[in-house]
Amino acid sequence: LIQLAQRMTRVQASAIREILKVTERPEVLSFAGGLPAPEAFPAEALARAHADVLASEPGPALQYGPTEGHAPLRAWVAERMTRRGLPAAPEQVLITAGSQQGIDLVGKALIDPGDTVLVEAPSYLAALQCFSTYEARLETVETDDDGMRIEALERALRACRPRLIYLVPTFQNPRGTTLPLERRLAIARIAAEHGVAVLEDDPYGELRYRGGALPPIAGLIPEAPVIHLGSFSKTLAPGLRLGYAVADERTIRALTIAKQATDLHTGSLAQRAVARLLETFDFDAHLRRLRTLYGERLDAMLASIERSFPPGTAWTRPEGGLFVWVRLPGGIDAEELLADAMQQRVAFVPGAPFYPDRPCVESLRLNFSNRPPPLIAEGMARLGACAAARLRERRLGDGVASGVAG
Amino acid sequence: LIQLAQRMTRVQASAIREILKVTERPEVLSFAGGLPAPEAFPAEALARAHADVLASEPGPALQYGPTEGHAPLRAWVAERMTRRGLPAAPEQVLITAGSQQGIDLVGKALIDPGDTVLVEAPSYLAALQCFSTYEARLETVETDDDGMRIEALERALRACRPRLIYLVPTFQNPRGTTLPLERRLAIARIAAEHGVAVLEDDPYGELRYRGGALPPIAGLIPEAPVIHLGSFSKTLAPGLRLGYAVADERTIRALTIAKQATDLHTGSLAQRAVARLLETFDFDAHLRRLRTLYGERLDAMLASIERSFPPGTAWTRPEGGLFVWVRLPGGIDAEELLADAMQQRVAFVPGAPFYPDRPCVESLRLNFSNRPPPLIAEGMARLGACAAARLRERRLGDGVASGVAG
Repeated sequence: LIQLAQRMTRVQASAIREILKVTERPEVLSFAGGLPAPEAFPAEALARAHADVLASEPGPALQYGPTEGHAPLRAWVAERMTRRGLPAAPEQVLITAGSQQGIDLVGKALIDPGDTVLVEAPSYLAALQCFSTYEARLETVETDDDGMRIEALERALRACRPRLIYLVPTFQNPRGTTLPLERRLAIARIAAEHGVAVLEDDPYGELRYRGGALPPIAGLIPEAPVIHLGSFSKTLAPGLRLGYAVADERTIRALTIAKQATDLHTGSLAQRAVARLLETFDFDAHLRRLRTLYGERLDAMLASIERSFPPGTAWTRPEGGLFVWVRLPGGIDAEELLADAMQQRVAFVPGAPFYPDRPCVESLRLNFSNRPPPLIAEGMARLGACAAARLRERRLGDGVASGVAG
Repeated sequence: LIQLAQRMTRVQASAIREILKVTERPEVLSFAGGLPAPEAFPAEALARAHADVLASEPGPALQYGPTEGHAPLRAWVAERMTRRGLPAAPEQVLITAGSQQGIDLVGKALIDPGDTVLVEAPSYLAALQCFSTYEARLETVETDDDGMRIEALERALRACRPRLIYLVPTFQNPRGTTLPLERRLAIARIAAEHGVAVLEDDPYGELRYRGGALPPIAGLIPEAPVIHLGSFSKTLAPGLRLGYAVADERTIRALTIAKQATDLHTGSLAQRAVARLLETFDFDAHLRRLRTLYGERLDAMLASIERSFPPGTAWTRPEGGLFVWVRLPGGIDAEELLADAMQQRVAFVPGAPFYPDRPCVESLRLNFSNRPPPLIAEGMARLGACAAARLRERRLGDGVASGVAG
């Protein structure tokens, strides 16, 4: 069963990799990837930071470094997370090669074959894939438009003793939903009471376009065993491969040992360049610009879906992040829709692979961060037309079928 | 038993981490780390390459990239490995975050809990640690001054069916020994005949200071399942975290899936900067300079050991790489010697942690690449004096003991 699950997520991952490869062709208007807008990368500031570091400290910038990460960068993360509601000392921070590596290290340090991991359904595919490589048993917890349902989580906890609860509480991938404060508190309380580790994956937390900020689950109850993962991929640039894990010192030591056997340490040059950048760069002003840019794109996408998709379509209304989640009407299969859409040179990711089991085949994920509003409108017009055509065809088919039957 | 082994290698790894932390203090003359000489990093060329890439292709250099790696860098590796005796197409290359990640991905893709991995004794510690995190059973194969002994390997293969044979055939870590051609051929033949995967870890292969180059094991018999790992850490700079795996396409696909769940991909900027650098930089001239520099340091270390250590000391005479392996006379424990040496502000790594079992406590590893010849001479003089003092003490102790007994 575990091997089957493993194979399944591998197949899912390969399927998505293939979709992404095809859809990233320049002639395709793609909403498939989770790509930030390249025009918003602070390329000049990063170029200056790299040049400065390579001129002033070439030795340490190019040499092996500590597994835990570059001390000033750990200190910066600790300080910022403290301000965001997760009080942390630099010793509670491990610098990772993107937050994906944080997921992998937690899997490596915590999961033994056969252990149960509770996940949202749908959930971030590469996390499911990662837990499967450690031969975890994935059990889903029901979600609604506010994220993981607490009663469902409590039911799952009565049914099994999980090793880990994994969730993306803020602007979830793939749905874009956000867990409200009372559910965050409930999860922190459950983690503390049951002694169950929670992995709070938060790559999008800083990308809020409306509504008020919510505190990380990891900061709510100090004794709750919550590991918080963050990333510079969505705020600076993913090509740097820089993320971080924040947890109690003992957990950070365990993750550090796991990381040492994994890749020794995260790139010294990338860490030092970003630490140097953060000394002078107005990170908050940069985030404000990003929020304006992406907020407009989110609005454009929500309006375009409303305008272009056939009646009966349902979709999430995220307050931040990168994704909107759509549910097609009339039982349209999103994989079939993708085939039609590719003929119109527009792409997305079908929702089914994001489910560890019992997929909702009518669902699909749309990314809005990577295209300007006019292209979003154009893409949604084409996609909506494809969906409307499929819907007409299905109804006609039903009609014919009833005709034949009658 | 496996958990014990795991815990053991973790303890060993922590011990070495602590030693390295203490010994890298500026006041300590350290021969402990495996650090390249920072003065030989091509910092200016790398600075130009980073600046060029960030000016001419900031989008792709800072964006997510393919898990397999940047195509021109894969092509460069394939071309170079073909010239070095391992014919490979770009599709047979996966770019990794240093060759340490190559070891980890092979562990993740190939090793199931309880699988046996055959290793040299002593062997590269972080590889042992890595296999242990996948709950492998480590079995040692006897080595001599030419590396892994073929009769011992054949005996081990009769006793168990290993999942993997791991070795560093060229300028081994920690011993500096090199496997001769006939043993390489024998191992390739054994891999092909038994269908047992071989992991050929080759971070030092380009750093040869005397003698003729030997072909990679992976290039000798096309159908032998040999995975070759290489690195830019010792030839350009470790802080970039760039390495590569070369294998048949099917294996590369499996490693790529494992990598996707691990860190999505290796840093785009680092890959593109190095690919750009290699377009114009005279890599072979750079290697010649490195070989001259390190060859002098190796000679200095061999001469200093000869001059400064007490009679009865034995040591390897490597033809390349970064390390010399020393065996102390008279039963001196290298960990006790380290305590004395630290008082004289000189450091090394005791040999015991490099053994998965039955350690040789009189052994120690010396790195020669990180210090110029006068400091090597000074360090070996201090270390030799410590060893001589320990030896006198032990003999005096023996004398007193016999006196009491008599």
